[in-house]
Amino acid sequence: MDRIRANFDKQVFMRTLGAELISWDKGFARIACDIAEPHLQQHGYAHAGVLASIADSACGYAALSTMPDVAEVMSVEFKITLMRPCTAKRIVADGRVLKTGRTLVFTEGAVTDSGGSETYATMTATMFCLMPGK
Amino acid sequence: MDRIRANFDKQVFMRTLGAELISWDKGFARIACDIAEPHLQQHGYAHAGVLASIADSACGYAALSTMPDVAEVMSVEFKITLMRPCTAKRIVADGRVLKTGRTLVFTEGAVTDSGGSETYATMTATMFCLMPGK
Amino acid sequence: MDRIRANFDKQVFMRTLGAELISWDKGFARIACDIAEPHLQQHGYAHAGVLASIADSACGYAALSTMPDVAEVMSVEFKITLMRPCTAKRIVADGRVLKTGRTLVFTEGAVTDSGGSETYATMTATMFCLMPGK
Amino acid sequence: MDRIRANFDKQVFMRTLGAELISWDKGFARIACDIAEPHLQQHGYAHAGVLASIADSACGYAALSTMPDVAEVMSVEFKITLMRPCTAKRIVADGRVLKTGRTLVFTEGAVTDSGGSETYATMTATMFCLMPGK
Repeated sequence: MDRIRANFDKQVFMRTLGAELISWDKGFARIACDIAEPHLQQHGYAHAGVLASIADSACGYAALSTMPDVAEVMSVEFKITLMRPCTAKRIVADGRVLKTGRTLVFTEGAVTDSGGSETYATMTATMFCLMPGK
Repeated sequence: MDRIRANFDKQVFMRTLGAELISWDKGFARIACDIAEPHLQQHGYAHAGVLASIADSACGYAALSTMPDVAEVMSVEFKITLMRPCTAKRIVADGRVLKTGRTLVFTEGAVTDSGGSETYATMTATMFCLMPGK
Repeated sequence: MDRIRANFDKQVFMRTLGAELISWDKGFARIACDIAEPHLQQHGYAHAGVLASIADSACGYAALSTMPDVAEVMSVEFKITLMRPCTAKRIVADGRVLKTGRTLVFTEGAVTDSGGSETYATMTATMFCLMPGK
Repeated sequence: MDRIRANFDKQVFMRTLGAELISWDKGFARIACDIAEPHLQQHGYAHAGVLASIADSACGYAALSTMPDVAEVMSVEFKITLMRPCTAKRIVADGRVLKTGRTLVFTEGAVTDSGGSETYATMTATMFCLMPGK
């Protein structure tokens, strides 16, 4: 599972956001991010794109953890629902695999505050398993 | 329509990404962004979250341009489909209103290269019209 | 909660499909349907539209159960993911409310076999609370 | 392209709805349906599931028309947005391919009245190209 960490460390955009890979397991990944001025939209909430970026990555790593070692993961599509304005100082995105297949992996994600008491967004995402030479 | 520009300038996250509001009109908005190292995911493509962030903002401003002057816009949900890896040096996100209502505005968006010849992603987004005192 | 039953009985399309409202509670609804020849697509599986119709209704009734008595419910949008071909003789769709608001109610649904051991589809749906005179 | 017609004729659920395959071409398909009592929801509008079923099939046939002759098409996921209540006596669903690949085909659909002047719903759908022996 070290490849999840190694892969995350190559995602420069996660560094740009200040996001950290907190934990992962087969079919699961958690990413957290401290929210500060650079993440905000016009009303002072975390931008929907910040939540989407982190949740998409959490779903992607959850998916990758169920794929063969040589596989790469690509997002096919995701839908995010923004249930309430995100006022948290730190957000946590959990990604979970619902079903893994040879080509597609179906995942869901949620973005909460660091205590897990408020859910700001939910996601469903389809991930593609890219095998070398294909 | 100056409020579109004024509103965009308050979205700190757009500055973080280096995104620019290029043009807007009633029911339309265009945002562009030069892609560089900080936007990349692990394969060297622009991260899905970058495309989603910019397309969501373009859809949001397209929606806002059809709302009463005192209204604020909030994203309810969006779905993005990532049709091909984004290798462009500069991307353009267009947002368009499909139907505007008193409470909800339905929009669609597309992310292309700066010439508009390759489409990297399409989006459909539901926007909420928030009136003061509600 | 009798209005859930009364409302369901007015949904002629549910009768066309042979769907039954099995149970409901605040924030939850379950609809079941025996699958037969009229529901099939070209490979002999239940058509995606059958699963979507029943899941959408389950989400709608889950939402309605959290709204004021005089309110009506309308679907704003839903996304359905078809995780595996549906070969069940009887399907069950559960709808659950994730967050209820004054105007929008966010829900999720799942379509399983009657024993709940196989999940054929998952849904997220946004429902609108329509108040009289609005 | 006769396989599109032959395939449609095997979709028993389309007959259950009374839907007709009107026309198709490479990357496009149109399905129409007269709306009557059996299609209605509780307010007397066509049920969201009817629109979804027909739009999903139109997207599926649009996708199939771009696949190898021996391929089968399966819906992976779709999102439908219900822009206004559907009061039409006859609805038309158009499906169009946005990008076709070896494994996945990305499509969009719209449901209008028979004159095409009112749009009731828009869809984006991902279709899977299933090759024999896979």
